[in-house]
Amino acid sequence: MKDSRFRDVDIRAPRGNTLTAKSWLTEAPLRMLMNNLDPDVAENPKELVVYGGIGRAARDWACFDAIVASLESLETDETLLVQSGKPVGVFKTHADAPRVLIANSNLVPHWADWEHFNELDAKGLMMYGQMTAGSWIYIGSQGIVQGTYETFVEAGRQHYDGKLAGRWVLTAGLGGMGGAQPLAATLAGACSLNIECQQSRIDFRLRTRYVDEQADDLDDALARIARYTAEGKAVSIALHGNAAEILPELVRRGVRPDMVTDQTSAHDPLNGYLPAGWRWEDYRARSKREPQAVVKASKASMAEHVRAMLAFAEQGIPTFDYGNNIRQMAQEEGVANAFDFPGFVPAYIRPLFCRGIGPFRWAALSGDPQDIYKTDAKVKELIPDDAHLHRWLDMARERISFQGLPARICWVGLGLRAKLGLAFNEMVRSGELSAPVVIGRDHLDSGSVASPNRETESMQDGSDAVSDWPLLNALLNTASGATWVSLHHGGGVGMGFSQHAGMVIVCDGSDDAARRIARVLHNDPATGVMRHADAGYDIAIECAKSQGLDLPMIK
Amino acid sequence: MKDSRFRDVDIRAPRGNTLTAKSWLTEAPLRMLMNNLDPDVAENPKELVVYGGIGRAARDWACFDAIVASLESLETDETLLVQSGKPVGVFKTHADAPRVLIANSNLVPHWADWEHFNELDAKGLMMYGQMTAGSWIYIGSQGIVQGTYETFVEAGRQHYDGKLAGRWVLTAGLGGMGGAQPLAATLAGACSLNIECQQSRIDFRLRTRYVDEQADDLDDALARIARYTAEGKAVSIALHGNAAEILPELVRRGVRPDMVTDQTSAHDPLNGYLPAGWRWEDYRARSKREPQAVVKASKASMAEHVRAMLAFAEQGIPTFDYGNNIRQMAQEEGVANAFDFPGFVPAYIRPLFCRGIGPFRWAALSGDPQDIYKTDAKVKELIPDDAHLHRWLDMARERISFQGLPARICWVGLGLRAKLGLAFNEMVRSGELSAPVVIGRDHLDSGSVASPNRETESMQDGSDAVSDWPLLNALLNTASGATWVSLHHGGGVGMGFSQHAGMVIVCDGSDDAARRIARVLHNDPATGVMRHADAGYDIAIECAKSQGLDLPMIK
Ligand SMILES: NC(=O)c1ccc[n+]([C@@H]2O[C@H](COP(=O)([O-])OP(=O)(O)OC[C@H]3O[C@@H](n4cnc5c(N)ncnc54)[C@H](O)[C@@H]3O)[C@@H](O)[C@H]2O)c1
Ligand SMILES: NC(=O)c1ccc[n+]([C@@H]2O[C@H](COP(=O)([O-])OP(=O)(O)OC[C@H]3O[C@@H](n4cnc5c(N)ncnc54)[C@H](O)[C@@H]3O)[C@@H](O)[C@H]2O)c1
Repeated sequence: MKDSRFRDVDIRAPRGNTLTAKSWLTEAPLRMLMNNLDPDVAENPKELVVYGGIGRAARDWACFDAIVASLESLETDETLLVQSGKPVGVFKTHADAPRVLIANSNLVPHWADWEHFNELDAKGLMMYGQMTAGSWIYIGSQGIVQGTYETFVEAGRQHYDGKLAGRWVLTAGLGGMGGAQPLAATLAGACSLNIECQQSRIDFRLRTRYVDEQADDLDDALARIARYTAEGKAVSIALHGNAAEILPELVRRGVRPDMVTDQTSAHDPLNGYLPAGWRWEDYRARSKREPQAVVKASKASMAEHVRAMLAFAEQGIPTFDYGNNIRQMAQEEGVANAFDFPGFVPAYIRPLFCRGIGPFRWAALSGDPQDIYKTDAKVKELIPDDAHLHRWLDMARERISFQGLPARICWVGLGLRAKLGLAFNEMVRSGELSAPVVIGRDHLDSGSVASPNRETESMQDGSDAVSDWPLLNALLNTASGATWVSLHHGGGVGMGFSQHAGMVIVCDGSDDAARRIARVLHNDPATGVMRHADAGYDIAIECAKSQGLDLPMIK
Repeated sequence: MKDSRFRDVDIRAPRGNTLTAKSWLTEAPLRMLMNNLDPDVAENPKELVVYGGIGRAARDWACFDAIVASLESLETDETLLVQSGKPVGVFKTHADAPRVLIANSNLVPHWADWEHFNELDAKGLMMYGQMTAGSWIYIGSQGIVQGTYETFVEAGRQHYDGKLAGRWVLTAGLGGMGGAQPLAATLAGACSLNIECQQSRIDFRLRTRYVDEQADDLDDALARIARYTAEGKAVSIALHGNAAEILPELVRRGVRPDMVTDQTSAHDPLNGYLPAGWRWEDYRARSKREPQAVVKASKASMAEHVRAMLAFAEQGIPTFDYGNNIRQMAQEEGVANAFDFPGFVPAYIRPLFCRGIGPFRWAALSGDPQDIYKTDAKVKELIPDDAHLHRWLDMARERISFQGLPARICWVGLGLRAKLGLAFNEMVRSGELSAPVVIGRDHLDSGSVASPNRETESMQDGSDAVSDWPLLNALLNTASGATWVSLHHGGGVGMGFSQHAGMVIVCDGSDDAARRIARVLHNDPATGVMRHADAGYDIAIECAKSQGLDLPMIK
C-alpha cells in the first residue's frame, strides 16, 4: 500500500486544444485530475495528496493510471464510476448523463470514524477525498482566498464598521487552504500574524507572495505587528512555531489581537495537527507506529489551543472556528464550553448561502491565462453594478498567481451562475476563448453539504445534521447533466462530521452543453436556496420567490 | 405533528389505463405511493406507516397531498425532489432523467442514531423511510416471501440435505415482513412455530392464509408441532406471546427446533420490540411518555432473547439473524458473544448477490391480476430451464393473495433482469398487458446497500462498512434513467447501521422506455456484481467476465 502510493514523478495536465481523450467531456476530468496533482497545485503530489491533511486525487498510482486510461477511452455515452479514488466500472449511459460519478470516503454511520477509516485506508480499500481533492476541482490556494477574504470583510463589517486598517488577525496553519489567510487578510486591509510549524510551508507561501514576511521569533513578530498596525499598513507576518504553545503564551502576556481564528488540520489529529513540544518529523513517524498515542497527544494540544481561543473570546475579541473541527476535538478532550465561540458559517456566511451564493469557480483547460482574463472581463460586463465583485477581480488578478491551469473563483449565486456559464460557453463557441473551460464549485456551498460543526451549524430549524440535502443535490446534478458529480464524507471537519457533494460541468461551446449548463447552474444553487427556505430563512424564501423556484411546501 | 400524521381515510391507487397525471412516468409513482398506503398493503396506513416499525410513505398528510398534487402536474422533463417524505422542489431536467429523486432519513454519521432521529422526527423535520416504504415499491408480504423462502431452502440444502419434511423452524414476529415466515416455511416444506405478541397481527395472517393455525398456548403449540412433524406435514402454527419469554422457556425445557431465527422489529427498540412482561398498549403509550426507559426495557429483553438463540446455536441448531439487528442490540446490552451466530446474508444469500441476483419485482398499474399471470407465463417462457423458479411461480400464484396492485417478485440477476424488463415493455406496447407495469426491487439487493450487520456482514475483504457502493448505485441509476431513485439511511437494521438505494422504472411500451430499461436493468444489478468482484468473490469475478462487464481494475 505505502509503496503503491509513492511515485517520483511530476504530473502536469496537457494544455492547448488538442484532445487526448475522445471528447472535451472526458478530456476535462482527465486534465482536472492531473491538475490536482500538479506540483504547483498539490501539497504532496508524489503521494497523491492534494490538500487538507491526506486529501487525495486517486487511491494509489495504479488507480491513477487506470483512471487516466479509462478517461482516454471513454465514449460520450459512457460513465466511469470511481469508488474512493479507484476506477471500478464503466457503464453505458447517455449523452446527457455525467461522464464520471464519484463516491469517496463514505462509511455507514456507526463505523464512520477515523479509526475505522484508517484501518480501511491501510488495507488499500479507501481513500480520503476531502472536498475538491478527490473530486478534481481543487485550484490551489486561490480557491480559498476569496472565501477567507469574504469572511474577514464580513467580520470587519460586523465588528469594526467595515474598517480593518490598523487591525490585526491572529491565526495558524499555512497549508493548502490556510495559506490563503495572510493574503486574504491583506486584501481585506488588515495585518495578520500566521503561526505555522513547518518552515517548508512558510517558504512556499513567501515564494508565492501569499505571505509578506517572516518574523524571527514571537517578540519580533509582535514588534512588526505593532509597527505596521500603527502605520496602517496591511502586512502579513509568518511565525515559525506551534499554535498550541504560542496562543496560550499570548493570552498570558495579555496581547489583544482584533480577530482570532485557526486553520491547522485539526480535523485529522493523526496526520494534521502537531502536538505541543513535538517536531513534525517525529509526529509523522510516530503516526504510523503508535497512532493512538499520537491522536491523544494531538487532541490534548488542541484542547490547550481552544482554551486560549476561548480566553480571547471572553475578552470580547471576535473569535471563530474556520471549519477545521477544532472545537469538537477540544470538547471531546473535556473542554465543555468549546462551542462558546461560533463557526464562521453561522457568523458570516449563511446569509450568502440563502441566496445560493458560494465558491463558484472555473478553470481554463487551454492553460492560457488570457482565457481567464477574458472571462474576468465578461463577469464585469455582465455584472456591472457590483463594486465589491469588481474590486475582488482586480485584486485577484494583481495579487494571486495562478497555480496549475489558470482559474478564477468568484462568489456568485442563483441566477448569475447560469448567466455566466452560458456566456462562457458562448465565448468557447465563438473562439474568443482558446479552448473549453470547466465550471465547478467547492463542496462547501449553499446546497451541497451537511456539516453540523461548520456549514450547517446552528440552522434556524435545528436541521443541522439532516444529510438528505447534499444527497438530493448530487442526484439532481446527475439528473441535470453535470459532467462529473461526487458524493463525499468527512471533508473539512473529518470522519463522521460531514457529508457533501461536488459537481463540475464543461463548457465546450456546443448547444448540448448550453442546455446542460442552463439546467445544472440553475438547479445546483437552487437546491441551496431551497434547503435554506425549507429551514425558514426569510432571505432564502424571498430569493426563491424572486427567482421563481417551484417549492411545493413554501407558500 | 401527531395530528398531521393521522387521517381517517382509505387510500387506494387508481386502476385501469386512464391517466390522472400527465404521463405514465408520473402516474406510476403516484399509483405506487398510494398503493403503499392501501389498507390491504400497509400496516397502519392512517398514520402513513407502511411496514417495519414506523417506515412511512410520506412525512405527514399535508406532504402526501402536496406530493400527489406535484405528481399530477409534473411535466415529462421535470423532476420532483422528496426529502424525508416531504416534497421540497420541482426542477427542470430532461426526458431521460428520473421523474422523482428521494432522500429519506439521512443523517450526518456522528448524529446518526435513534435519539437524534426521534428528536427531528418529533419536530416534523424527518421521517423514517425504511427501505421500500419511503421509496414507494413495497408490495405487501409477498415481497418478502420469496426472500425468506430462498433462505429457508438454502439453509435446508446446507444443513438437512435439501429435505425439510419433518423439520420445524422457530421464529417470532408476524408483522409486515415477518408475516411471510410461516408461509415461506410451508412452501419450503417445513413446519414452523411463530411467536407474535399482538393478536391482531396473528388474525391478519390467519385471514390471508399466511399462517395455518393458532395454538392455545405453548404446550398446545409443541403438541401440534410434534404431531405434524411426525406426519411429515408442513403446517405453520402461530402462538400469541412474547419471544423474550418463550425462547428462554424452550431452552429451559430442552426443546430442540431444527432452525431458529427472528423477525421482531428489534431494529427499533422504541417502537418495534415488546419488553418481556409488558402489554403492547402500555409499550406504545410509554414510548411517547418515557422513551429512554422504554428503550432500556426493550433492549434488556432483546438480550434475553439473544441469549436463548445463542443457547440453541451452541447445541448445533442452525440459528441466524434475519436482518433485524437484534445481535447488535444485545451486544450493546452486554451480550459479548451476540455475533456468534451469523446473519442470513453471509450464511445463505451472498452467493446469489455475487451474480446480481436479488429481490427483483414488478407491479401491474392496471390493477388486473391477469397482467401479472401473463408476465408469470412470460418469465417461464424466457427462462425455460430453471425448475426452482418455475416451482416458485406456481406456488406463488396458488398460495399468495395479491395485496393492493397485483405484483410479482422473483429473484433473478444480471442478464435476466434486462431481458424480462424489455419483454414486459414489449407486452405493454403490443397491448397484451392492459396498462404499463413498473419494475423495481428492494433496497436489500446486490449492489444497493451497505449494512455491516446484515447485507454486507463479513465481506471477504473487510469492506463491510464502505458505503460508497450504494451511493454509486443511486447515482448510476439516476444517470441511466430510472423513473425514481432513492437514497435511504437506517432501513432494516435501524439508524446508524445501513445506507441503501432504491430504483423503480416504468415500462410504458415506448422505445424511450425500452432504451432506459436496457440501461437501468443492466447497470443496476451490474453494480452488485462489480461490488462483489471488487471484494474478491470468485463467483462475482466470473459473472463479470461472462457478462462482459468493464471493470478497470479486475483483470
Ligand atoms: N471552512 C472551510 O471551508 C475551510 C477552508 C479551509 C480550510 N479548512 C480547514 O482548515 C484546515 C486546514 O486546511 P489545509 O488544507 O490548509 O490543511 P493542511 O494540512 O494543508 O495545512 C495545515 C497546516 O497546519 C500546520 N499545523 C499543524 N499543526 C500545527 C500547530 N500545532 N501549530 C501550527 N501549525 C500547525 C501544518 O504544518 C500545515 O501546514 C483543515 O481542517 C480544513 O478542513 C476549512
Ligand atoms: N433481512 C431482511 O431483509 C429483512 C426482511 C424482513 C424483515 N427484516 C427485519 O425484521 C424486522 C421485522 O420487520 P416487519 O416489517 O415484520 O416489522 P413489523 O414492525 O411490522 O413487525 C414486527 C412484529 O414483531 C412483533 N413483536 C415485537 N416484539 C415482540 C416480542 N417481544 N415477541 C413477539 N413478537 C414481537 C410485533 O408485534 C410485530 O407484529 C425488522 O427489523 C426488519 O427490518 C429484515
